[in-house]
Amino acid sequence: MTEITDIVKKAYEAKTKLYNLDIKLRDEALKNIAHEIEENKDKIYGANKEDLILSQKKVDEGKLTQATFNRLKLDENKMRDMIKGVYDVINLENPINKVLWARELDKGLVLKKITCPIGLIGIIFEARPDVMVQITSLAIKSGNAVILKGGSEAENTNKAFFEIIQNALKKTPEFPLEAVNLIFSHEDIKSLLSLDEYIDLIIPRGSNKLVTYIQSNTKIPVLGHASGICHIFVDKTAKRELVENVTLDAKIQYPSACNAVETVLVHKEYPYLNELKNHLIENGVKIVENPESYSCEYSDKILTVKTVNSLAEAIEHINKYGSHHTDSILTEEAENAEKFMTMVDSAGVFHNTSTRFSDGFRYGFGAEVGISTNKTLARGPVGLEGLCIYKYRLYGEGQTVGDYAKGVKQFHHRDI
Amino acid sequence: MTEITDIVKKAYEAKTKLYNLDIKLRDEALKNIAHEIEENKDKIYGANKEDLILSQKKVDEGKLTQATFNRLKLDENKMRDMIKGVYDVINLENPINKVLWARELDKGLVLKKITCPIGLIGIIFEARPDVMVQITSLAIKSGNAVILKGGSEAENTNKAFFEIIQNALKKTPEFPLEAVNLIFSHEDIKSLLSLDEYIDLIIPRGSNKLVTYIQSNTKIPVLGHASGICHIFVDKTAKRELVENVTLDAKIQYPSACNAVETVLVHKEYPYLNELKNHLIENGVKIVENPESYSCEYSDKILTVKTVNSLAEAIEHINKYGSHHTDSILTEEAENAEKFMTMVDSAGVFHNTSTRFSDGFRYGFGAEVGISTNKTLARGPVGLEGLCIYKYRLYGEGQTVGDYAKGVKQFHHRDI
Repeated sequence: MTEITDIVKKAYEAKTKLYNLDIKLRDEALKNIAHEIEENKDKIYGANKEDLILSQKKVDEGKLTQATFNRLKLDENKMRDMIKGVYDVINLENPINKVLWARELDKGLVLKKITCPIGLIGIIFEARPDVMVQITSLAIKSGNAVILKGGSEAENTNKAFFEIIQNALKKTPEFPLEAVNLIFSHEDIKSLLSLDEYIDLIIPRGSNKLVTYIQSNTKIPVLGHASGICHIFVDKTAKRELVENVTLDAKIQYPSACNAVETVLVHKEYPYLNELKNHLIENGVKIVENPESYSCEYSDKILTVKTVNSLAEAIEHINKYGSHHTDSILTEEAENAEKFMTMVDSAGVFHNTSTRFSDGFRYGFGAEVGISTNKTLARGPVGLEGLCIYKYRLYGEGQTVGDYAKGVKQFHHRDI
Repeated sequence: MTEITDIVKKAYEAKTKLYNLDIKLRDEALKNIAHEIEENKDKIYGANKEDLILSQKKVDEGKLTQATFNRLKLDENKMRDMIKGVYDVINLENPINKVLWARELDKGLVLKKITCPIGLIGIIFEARPDVMVQITSLAIKSGNAVILKGGSEAENTNKAFFEIIQNALKKTPEFPLEAVNLIFSHEDIKSLLSLDEYIDLIIPRGSNKLVTYIQSNTKIPVLGHASGICHIFVDKTAKRELVENVTLDAKIQYPSACNAVETVLVHKEYPYLNELKNHLIENGVKIVENPESYSCEYSDKILTVKTVNSLAEAIEHINKYGSHHTDSILTEEAENAEKFMTMVDSAGVFHNTSTRFSDGFRYGFGAEVGISTNKTLARGPVGLEGLCIYKYRLYGEGQTVGDYAKGVKQFHHRDI
């Protein structure tokens, strides 16, 4: 048995212990994590500095992008947001053991649909070490065991966080330590992806390339999105100022985000197309008007612009070239907005606002494990709710199916 | 482009039309289906007879089991239940366009989580032709396009049903006929499983072999279960009569059902073990007491019996050897029942009743597309709700993320 199989098996066994750990103790563990991080900031910055030195070399050699380097770098703002994130999760309602509904099937035969954790989740993330803390918090709150696999660039930082997390968890003696794990080597990904017998869900957080590789190499359900090709459709009645503000925000506020806009479709009767283009160009955006760019995720200050003849053509374009992530219509006609929001088959469909709002924090989920373009399980930003499933509990008094099949008894199916 | 790819592409294009068809028209289409089936019973029985003649030969030659033959055979009872099933679905609430919750993120920025169909679903089923009508009804009600692939034994019956369904759908001129399809040849399964670009979900209904084949040969999410290894745990305090009635019902009421019990675990201090065994044997059940049978799904009047030392041992056994389908505890101790129902990681966890209750009709779902042991998307019996996902609609007034990032504006996240 390889080391990784051993870790996964132990986590698999520990998952029910975590699920059964009282919410007070799960919240206590989270409080200890937030506290330990606050107390050990220097240690974290020290480890982060080691990673940054190694990564700076790679940037200089052209082996690592500046964007990745920036994501790796921790600062006071990121640290503060991260700690606040843990407290936000503590303040959220317990997502498990919630009775979704209860139904009396017949006298003395009561069915309850009750939330429970998914089980054991494998999370594979790249440069951002702050993601690890966020996801670990959500996992503990929802009673899921986790195997965390961090990127090699952040190895020292991740190790420092993990040590701090483990020390925090040890303060709650009932906490099953084997339910939270960190693994490192790239070889481990392959092993992890093959362990479909134990792992219920894989969540990749990283590049298109990483996510596509994972989706093609495992039988385990994968939650997430490979690409983020988001659109804005500017209808003929859209207000000029709103169009310019929202489009610019969606493109430049954070160009490498998955929810940044990549293509703007403009109705041929919208009167201010040239003004829009000039506004974007003046703000450093490069405009591309080329059919080959319809599937392009620039992650940069570059934007595809296309004129369309109708709302229907815009919808068709988005469903064909988009990634079913987030798309927005700018229009003064409510009916067109409704049509767009119904017909566009994306996790987020917005009216008169920026695609950049598609985010767990902005939606008020406290935190997110990622944004899903799946149409099974969870869709859009995934918070605590998306980490839970349910089970059916049936409470009886010795009833047999035979009596109902023979017609001796009848179901009355009364919701209670 | 092969014929099957062509059918799937057209269904993919038709899916939004079906999703946007008013619920009144979707219900009208269902009424017409029920009516047309009633009017054309003779045609169906005729087609079914052709299938039965061909299948009887196969049974005589040992190429087909008597059980499959029985599932293929339509009679007045099955026909009546099937038609009633369609009316039950009509009477269910519209599962799509339901606002699950709405939240004001800030003044004039409203987020709504709204149900929508999954999209295009491939359903692969074996002998039972009545399953086709049931599943088609659920798909139409939930606004999902479907590709149905029936078993070769039922080809004539399925074709007759499909022709009747198509004639019924034509009575609603707005109905997108290309959203409901039937395909036949075994070759088609391979093509179907490769079309992950268009198909959102595959639901197999059939043998362990069929389901396992499908799970191993597609990137499309598969909803269902391969095996049904269900357990009953007889605790030391369980009442003798209840134990004997429930166990017998769970085993013999319909031994080939996936929710029939396969293994009974008996607490070593339960005083009536011999009486239980005798009761089962007297009713034609063969008892096996052999560790090699722990993972056996007999689908027959055969039962594994094992003595265990404790509730914990029972739970461990079930999580290890079971198929996470449905498991029941028989006990007079409520605390043990709660522990069992929490710790056993199955879609159905029952107290003092038969595993055979794990079924969409008995749960009051009107109908089911299958029973899922998945832990993503739907779990347990899957009715209308399990065929829906949701999308996030965000209604704004030109807000930009930049204002919130800069602190010019703040989210207030007020549920409305």
